[in-house]
Amino acid sequence: MNLKALFLNCTLKQSPSISNTEALINKAVRLFGDLGVESEVIRVVDHKVSFGVSSDEGEGDEWPSILKKVKSCDILIIGSPIWFGVRSSVTQMVLERLDGTYEESDHVTGQFPLYGKVAGVIVTGNEDGAHDVAANTLFNLTHLGCTIPPNVDCYWVGPAGPGPSYIDAEGAKHLYTNKTVRFMVHNLVFFAQLLKDNPIPTNMKVLYEDALKESK
Amino acid sequence: MNLKALFLNCTLKQSPSISNTEALINKAVRLFGDLGVESEVIRVVDHKVSFGVSSDEGEGDEWPSILKKVKSCDILIIGSPIWFGVRSSVTQMVLERLDGTYEESDHVTGQFPLYGKVAGVIVTGNEDGAHDVAANTLFNLTHLGCTIPPNVDCYWVGPAGPGPSYIDAEGAKHLYTNKTVRFMVHNLVFFAQLLKDNPIPTNMKVLYEDALKESK
Amino acid sequence: MNLKALFLNCTLKQSPSISNTEALINKAVRLFGDLGVESEVIRVVDHKVSFGVSSDEGEGDEWPSILKKVKSCDILIIGSPIWFGVRSSVTQMVLERLDGTYEESDHVTGQFPLYGKVAGVIVTGNEDGAHDVAANTLFNLTHLGCTIPPNVDCYWVGPAGPGPSYIDAEGAKHLYTNKTVRFMVHNLVFFAQLLKDNPIPTNMKVLYEDALKESK
Amino acid sequence: MNLKALFLNCTLKQSPSISNTEALINKAVRLFGDLGVESEVIRVVDHKVSFGVSSDEGEGDEWPSILKKVKSCDILIIGSPIWFGVRSSVTQMVLERLDGTYEESDHVTGQFPLYGKVAGVIVTGNEDGAHDVAANTLFNLTHLGCTIPPNVDCYWVGPAGPGPSYIDAEGAKHLYTNKTVRFMVHNLVFFAQLLKDNPIPTNMKVLYEDALKESK
Repeated sequence: MNLKALFLNCTLKQSPSISNTEALINKAVRLFGDLGVESEVIRVVDHKVSFGVSSDEGEGDEWPSILKKVKSCDILIIGSPIWFGVRSSVTQMVLERLDGTYEESDHVTGQFPLYGKVAGVIVTGNEDGAHDVAANTLFNLTHLGCTIPPNVDCYWVGPAGPGPSYIDAEGAKHLYTNKTVRFMVHNLVFFAQLLKDNPIPTNMKVLYEDALKESK
Repeated sequence: MNLKALFLNCTLKQSPSISNTEALINKAVRLFGDLGVESEVIRVVDHKVSFGVSSDEGEGDEWPSILKKVKSCDILIIGSPIWFGVRSSVTQMVLERLDGTYEESDHVTGQFPLYGKVAGVIVTGNEDGAHDVAANTLFNLTHLGCTIPPNVDCYWVGPAGPGPSYIDAEGAKHLYTNKTVRFMVHNLVFFAQLLKDNPIPTNMKVLYEDALKESK
Repeated sequence: MNLKALFLNCTLKQSPSISNTEALINKAVRLFGDLGVESEVIRVVDHKVSFGVSSDEGEGDEWPSILKKVKSCDILIIGSPIWFGVRSSVTQMVLERLDGTYEESDHVTGQFPLYGKVAGVIVTGNEDGAHDVAANTLFNLTHLGCTIPPNVDCYWVGPAGPGPSYIDAEGAKHLYTNKTVRFMVHNLVFFAQLLKDNPIPTNMKVLYEDALKESK
Repeated sequence: MNLKALFLNCTLKQSPSISNTEALINKAVRLFGDLGVESEVIRVVDHKVSFGVSSDEGEGDEWPSILKKVKSCDILIIGSPIWFGVRSSVTQMVLERLDGTYEESDHVTGQFPLYGKVAGVIVTGNEDGAHDVAANTLFNLTHLGCTIPPNVDCYWVGPAGPGPSYIDAEGAKHLYTNKTVRFMVHNLVFFAQLLKDNPIPTNMKVLYEDALKESK
């Protein structure tokens, strides 16, 4: 197998600060390794990424080098902490920057650069909000062209209200999270290979022309 | 091709009241027909479905006959109006009832009954809320086992605030909606056939046992 | 003090089934009692409420009698379980029915019937989703005319994934929930009295006319 | 009247780029002026605000000077564009930074610094998502101590799918938005004065001690 998984860790904390999200990401990395899939983890906030919705905001913007890796991976996984019940500002910034890829569609098929990739999401927080983070993030990725296999969200949160985070709470022993990280990894790998062998044939340019006729 | 598409129209209005959601569903039905895919549309509220989270709530509950059709389709599409910015109570009731399928996993693989199906969503409202409806609904369906191809949400809403609905506003001429309904139909059909030819091999029982060991 | 609190328990389960949401509601009822505020709890699903968006859907619809109580309370609290990460179908059905009150605005001020009331929310689930339930529900209630004081959501959920519910998990001992239910009750009572003594003077009819001029 | 309104414009675009959100904010500023309320508008992205969840992240972080203004206003309004159906990364960053205020509660009452303030939200986008932005943002602000009067969200979006933004689409003439901006301004002013004259008496420290006893 020759698949590449890319994790974008959207923690608010720069290295070398400890990231709970990274601790859970590392578990997925190990499981991908067991299946012969190579992983790369980027902590977004260690790079100078500008706010914006284009693929290059100029003036030292380091997003273009991250985007290059996004385009060349087979499996894209967003890792997000929860803040105020929703995804982190860094996660949202990453999605906003991916908006720029809509402008780079294929000349023949009209497909966006993320077509043919499969995506998943890893979420950690000390309390409630994982469903909202996962739902919005996976949905946004389908708009950009990613396919979402079943059970490709993996999260850990503690009980209601503030409390210890993943590492301190020994989340590494939490059965539900350990179960779902396996479902995620196995389903992502199957679908990544499946789509590599069977590219999506949809011609969005032709369909657009057809829609244009109906809309007059 | 021998694929079946099932639409669950989750409007609040019983037949024969006009349903805007159904008007948009009918457009998708026609496009499926062009690709040789047979469709069935069920208006949920025309049936006596009980509140609950099991597959059969007894006492005249008509969900079991709908569930039977859900299990035998290849493509599942939820059609929901927007009320108060989120999905309708009927849509939510349908999801709650699908919770019961978690109990009916395959004896060998542990996969839920909706594994191997692909899903999409159709949303209409006279104002804002379609992203929230689509994101939550598609995400919930991945939990139940469905695969979500790229661009399988199709929605229509008018500008900010109350106003005419899809039919009265001539939404049938709206380019964005006409474009995305085509993306949806074509991607759903490709993925449905792909998964029929290549069943998901993940053994959730084995992975669960593995997670159990790590969680001690 | 002569304030009335009304709880709408939006569990899916009819009486006499045990409702975890009701167990937490009862804690709030006791605290209201300590402050001299009388409470009434309605389990919505014990009544025959029709789907719809008007104040009376006819044919045995029992919503009108519930709505009468909503209109005569000072403090309105929605109690919702979490299903699939969001509020229950019954909660959504209640909100949809409240849509009908927009049609019953005051002849002079144009204010809706829920103007002048204060609202809060109680949420229970065995896992994640409370923030989404609370945010949408409280927001919808502001549209209908309610005021939302600070810290008027009270919730209990367990850690990530399915697990025991509020009662079985001894949620009654959970500090965060016990703290926030007190903040909720005290702030609701203060604001209810404050608004009773100081009615909102905004004339929505006059402001509408002014907006009309600007929109030409 | 001696009330101060503070707008935090959370557009992604630095000055002097045109901000659609600012165009709608300016309408509210004018209406506040008519009622004798002074406004200040801060475009957050013009300042060097660090990612984080404390009130001062050090090393050139310019959040502390913004936070000072937040603490001294009576009316706080978050202005957010919609990106990918949810609030902007800058809006989320602002909320994350406000998390730090939980640490600065009053020594006697335990109230957070935002207690006693009233809040509203202004949202613009070229398509769908305003309800989600408003619901989450207003809810988060209630956690921080703000009071949310009825009808204090004002938004503009176009019909389904990408299209012209507020300014180009002549959103300034849109009746619904012009109506709701007036409801927002009038209700915020009434409540700001009401809370200035009647401070919230809740003693969160005493209630916390009481909760502690019950949780043993």
